[in-house]
Amino acid sequence: MSETDMKLVVVGAAGRMGQTLIRIVHGMAGVRLHAAVERPGSPFLGRDAGELAGLGPIGVAITDKPLEAFVEAEGVLDFTSPAGTVEFAGLAAQARIVHVIGTTGCSADDEAKIRAAARHARVIKSGNMSLGVNLLGVLVQQAARALKAADWDIEVLEMHHKHKVDAPSGTALLLGEAAAKGRGIALADHSVRVRDGHTGARPEGAIGFATLRGGSVVGEHSVIIAGEGEEITLSHSATDRSIFARGAVTAALWGRSQKPGFYSMLDVLGLN
Amino acid sequence: MSETDMKLVVVGAAGRMGQTLIRIVHGMAGVRLHAAVERPGSPFLGRDAGELAGLGPIGVAITDKPLEAFVEAEGVLDFTSPAGTVEFAGLAAQARIVHVIGTTGCSADDEAKIRAAARHARVIKSGNMSLGVNLLGVLVQQAARALKAADWDIEVLEMHHKHKVDAPSGTALLLGEAAAKGRGIALADHSVRVRDGHTGARPEGAIGFATLRGGSVVGEHSVIIAGEGEEITLSHSATDRSIFARGAVTAALWGRSQKPGFYSMLDVLGLN
Amino acid sequence: MSETDMKLVVVGAAGRMGQTLIRIVHGMAGVRLHAAVERPGSPFLGRDAGELAGLGPIGVAITDKPLEAFVEAEGVLDFTSPAGTVEFAGLAAQARIVHVIGTTGCSADDEAKIRAAARHARVIKSGNMSLGVNLLGVLVQQAARALKAADWDIEVLEMHHKHKVDAPSGTALLLGEAAAKGRGIALADHSVRVRDGHTGARPEGAIGFATLRGGSVVGEHSVIIAGEGEEITLSHSATDRSIFARGAVTAALWGRSQKPGFYSMLDVLGLN
Amino acid sequence: MSETDMKLVVVGAAGRMGQTLIRIVHGMAGVRLHAAVERPGSPFLGRDAGELAGLGPIGVAITDKPLEAFVEAEGVLDFTSPAGTVEFAGLAAQARIVHVIGTTGCSADDEAKIRAAARHARVIKSGNMSLGVNLLGVLVQQAARALKAADWDIEVLEMHHKHKVDAPSGTALLLGEAAAKGRGIALADHSVRVRDGHTGARPEGAIGFATLRGGSVVGEHSVIIAGEGEEITLSHSATDRSIFARGAVTAALWGRSQKPGFYSMLDVLGLN
Repeated sequence: MSETDMKLVVVGAAGRMGQTLIRIVHGMAGVRLHAAVERPGSPFLGRDAGELAGLGPIGVAITDKPLEAFVEAEGVLDFTSPAGTVEFAGLAAQARIVHVIGTTGCSADDEAKIRAAARHARVIKSGNMSLGVNLLGVLVQQAARALKAADWDIEVLEMHHKHKVDAPSGTALLLGEAAAKGRGIALADHSVRVRDGHTGARPEGAIGFATLRGGSVVGEHSVIIAGEGEEITLSHSATDRSIFARGAVTAALWGRSQKPGFYSMLDVLGLN
Repeated sequence: MSETDMKLVVVGAAGRMGQTLIRIVHGMAGVRLHAAVERPGSPFLGRDAGELAGLGPIGVAITDKPLEAFVEAEGVLDFTSPAGTVEFAGLAAQARIVHVIGTTGCSADDEAKIRAAARHARVIKSGNMSLGVNLLGVLVQQAARALKAADWDIEVLEMHHKHKVDAPSGTALLLGEAAAKGRGIALADHSVRVRDGHTGARPEGAIGFATLRGGSVVGEHSVIIAGEGEEITLSHSATDRSIFARGAVTAALWGRSQKPGFYSMLDVLGLN
Repeated sequence: MSETDMKLVVVGAAGRMGQTLIRIVHGMAGVRLHAAVERPGSPFLGRDAGELAGLGPIGVAITDKPLEAFVEAEGVLDFTSPAGTVEFAGLAAQARIVHVIGTTGCSADDEAKIRAAARHARVIKSGNMSLGVNLLGVLVQQAARALKAADWDIEVLEMHHKHKVDAPSGTALLLGEAAAKGRGIALADHSVRVRDGHTGARPEGAIGFATLRGGSVVGEHSVIIAGEGEEITLSHSATDRSIFARGAVTAALWGRSQKPGFYSMLDVLGLN
Repeated sequence: MSETDMKLVVVGAAGRMGQTLIRIVHGMAGVRLHAAVERPGSPFLGRDAGELAGLGPIGVAITDKPLEAFVEAEGVLDFTSPAGTVEFAGLAAQARIVHVIGTTGCSADDEAKIRAAARHARVIKSGNMSLGVNLLGVLVQQAARALKAADWDIEVLEMHHKHKVDAPSGTALLLGEAAAKGRGIALADHSVRVRDGHTGARPEGAIGFATLRGGSVVGEHSVIIAGEGEEITLSHSATDRSIFARGAVTAALWGRSQKPGFYSMLDVLGLN
C-alpha cells in the first residue's frame, strides 16, 4: 500500500459482488479500500469488511454513512440497485469523486438523475464491466461493417455452465447486436436462434446463435464470420467471475484523471 | 507407378465421386487405376477416365464390362447405388478381390447379399469413409463410458457451409449415438436439440446439439465433455471432400492382406 | 451428510493441497472429512481443519496421530512427500483402507514399499490425478496407434499462465509420450521442440511441441493429428486447480469397492 | 455475364496465380475476363486462357499486348514481378483503369514509380490480398492499444501444412507487428520466438510466437490476448488459396468507383 494508492469505497459491501470487490481492491496494485458501506439496519454494520470477504481483518469496519466515506475517498464502486445507485450518484457528485456503476435495470428517470450527477462526478457506467467483452463488442461491430453480408455469414456461439437457465446469454445477444449495428440492420429481423431438422439453406444476412451448456464454464463467447475459403473468429473466454470487479477498479483508476462527465467502458478502453 | 502398386477399379467412374476417386487413386502412392467402369449405355463409355476427371489422358478408357475389369484387378472402389453395389459384390466375390463400399441406403436384403459375397471377397463397408470421423466415434464412445453422466455433460457442436439444408449433420448424430452407446442409453431419450429462451438448468445425462452454418466450411465436429473445473474436447475438421476417397483407398490397401470377410473402417483402424 | 458417506482422512492437512482437499471433501456428495493429519510438531495441531481451509469451523481438529485416524476411516488422500507416503502406506495397509496417492518423486525403493502395502490396502497412485488428463492420454495413444505416421502428423500444444517457468509442461510431455507409445517409437528420438527461422519441411513421424504463455490460464493442452484434408484434435482444459483433489476423491470412492491391490487412474476410468 | 460486369485483365496469365485469378474471375458475379496477358515469347501466347486454367475454352486468347488489353478494360489484376508491375502501372495510368497489385518485393524506387502512376490509375496494393487477414491486423492493433501490456499478454499462434519450410509464417509476423504497433513498441525488442526448458516467467510486454506444422493446413492464425481471469482470441483460418484472388477481385470492384489514388486493402475494407 502506498501514499499514492487511489482510495476506494465499496457500497453494498456485504453482498456477493461487494465481497468480491473488496477482495479485488485488496489484491490489486494502485488502489486501497478506504471504506465499506451497507444500508442502515444491515446486520453487518461494524463488522470488519476484510473478515466478511474471507481476507481476515483489514481494519475497515462496515458503515452506513456513505457521505462521510465519500468525502475522504477518490472513488466508489457500485453494483447495488437502481435506487441505491441514484442516491450514491448524488453523494459522489457532492464529493466530486469517481463513481463506477455496474448496476443494471435503471429506468430512464434513474438514468437522467445519474447523468445530472455526472456534471460534478466522473461517472463510468456499463452493463458489463469486463474489459474483454466490451472490447470484443467494438471489434465485432467493425468487422461486421467491413465485411459484406452477401459474402460473409455471422454466427454467435456461447457456452456456459450447466446451471444457466436461459439461452442465448445476455452477452451473446450483446455481441449479436454489435454485429447488427455494424451492418446497419435490426438484429430482431435477422437473427436465427434455432436450427433443427430441415432448415433450408442459410438466409443471406442472417445472424445465427448457437448455445452449449455444460460443466462449470464461466462464460465463453465466439463470433464467427465465415466467407468463401476463409473465416474470422473473435472470442472471449472468462474463467473467473472477478473480471467484472477487476474491470470496475480499472475504470476507477482511469476515471481518476478525467474531467467530470458520463463515460462508458469504451472510454476506459480508449475506443470512443 | 511401380510393379507392386495395388491395381484398383473405380465403378461409377463418370459420377462426381467416381471422378474424385480417379484423381485420388492417380495421386496416392502404392495404388494405380486399372480400370474405370460405367453402366452400359453411359455416354462416357470409351472416354479416357483421366481426361474426364480433369487429369489429362491416362490411358484408361471407361468400360461397361466390370467382370473383365475385376479379374485382373486387386480391388474395387464403389460409391454407387444399392443395386449396383449388390451386383458388384457378386462380381468381386468371383474375382476374389477387395470390395470397398461407401454406398449408402442399402436395405437389409441388400446387406445380406453383400455379406454373402464377403465369403469370397474382402468387403470393407462404412457409411462414412473418413478415417478421422470413424476414429473420433470410437474415442467418443470410450470417453462417454469412462466419465460418469452425473459429473460430465456431453455436447456435440457442428459447423457446415451455408448451403447445407438440414441440422444437425449426419456425422453429429453419429457422434451423439457413439456417446449414448458409451453411456448405455438411447440417444433419442436424452438428446437436447434446441435451446432458446427460458430453458431451465441442463438435465443430467443430456446430450446436447448445437449447429453453426456459414461460408464454405466442409465439416467441423466437436464433442465437448464438460465437468467441474475441466473439459475434454474431441474434434474433427475436414477441409477437403476428397477425404472419403482417400479413406476408401486406405481401406483397399489394408484389405489387400486380409482374409475374405466383412469389415468396417474400425477394422482398418485396428480398433475392432 | 449421510450415514453411507465414505469417511476420508486428509494427510498434509495444513499445506496448500491439503486445504484444497479439505474444501473438496467438504463440498462433494458421498464423502465426509473424518480426520485431518499433520506431522508432529506442526503449529497447526489442534486447529479446526475447516477454519484453516477457509470453510469456517467443521469440528475436525488437526491431529498428529495418523493410525488412530485411519482405523476408523475408509480412505486417505495423500499428496505429501515420498517419505510421508511410504509411512502412510504402511498404516493404510494395517487399517486396510483405500490409499489415494498423488505424491510425486518416489524412488524405486519407495515404489516397492508402496506396492508391498498394496497387498492389504487398496492403493490408487498417479502422477496426475485429473480424470480428464488421464483419459486424454489413453485416447491419444489409441489415435496415434490407429493413424499411420506417414500420413498423419502429431503436434502437442499447451498454454499456461504467465508465471510458469518451464516449457513444455509436464502434461504436454506426458501426452507426447502417449502418442509415441501408440506409434511404438521413443519420444526423445522424434520430438521437435523448437521451430524458428528456416526449419525445412516437417520430418515424417515427428511429434512437435508448441508453447503459449499468458494471463492466468490454469492449463490447456491439445494434441492435433493432421492428415491430408482432415484433422483430429483431442484437448483438455482445466479452469480450476481443484480438479486434482476432485479426481482423488473420485478415486477413493471407486477404490471403496475394490479388492486390495495397486491401481492407477486408468483403472478408476475403467480403461485398463 | 451481364453488360454491367466489370471487365478485368489478368497479367501473368499462365502462371499458377494467374490461372487461379482466371478461375475466380470466371466464377464470381459482377466481373468478367476481358483479356489475359503474358510476356512476349511465352509459349502460351494464343492459347485459350480458360483451357489453360482448367475451365474449358472461354474464348479469351492469351496475348502479349497489355496496352491494347487495358484500354478496353476497367481493371487489371497483377501478381507478377516488381519489374512487370512497374510497367503495368504505367500502362494502367494511361488507360486510367484500376490496378490491383499483389506483387511483393518492390524496391523503394519501384514503389515511387507505382505511386506516380497512381495519379491517374486507381492503384490498390497490398502484401496480402486476403480480406480476412487485413481485417484481423486492424483488429489486433486496436485490441493491443486498448489493453495495457502490464495486465494483458499477447501470443501469436500459427499452423501450416507439413511442407512449409520457415517459421513463424509471414502472416504471423505481420500480426505480431500489428500488436506491437498498437502498443507503440518495436516487435524486435519484445518478441519471444522460442520456449524450451527453463524459460523463467513470461517477460511483461512480450509478444510470443508459437508454430504448429502438419497435414495440409492452408493457414491458421490466432492472436491470443490473455489477462487475469479472461482472454480474447482473434483468429483467421484459410481453407483455400484462392482467397487472395478473391480479395483482388473484391478490391477491383471497390476501386471501380474511386478517384485515382494509391490505396490499400484497409481502404477496401473501409478501415482507413
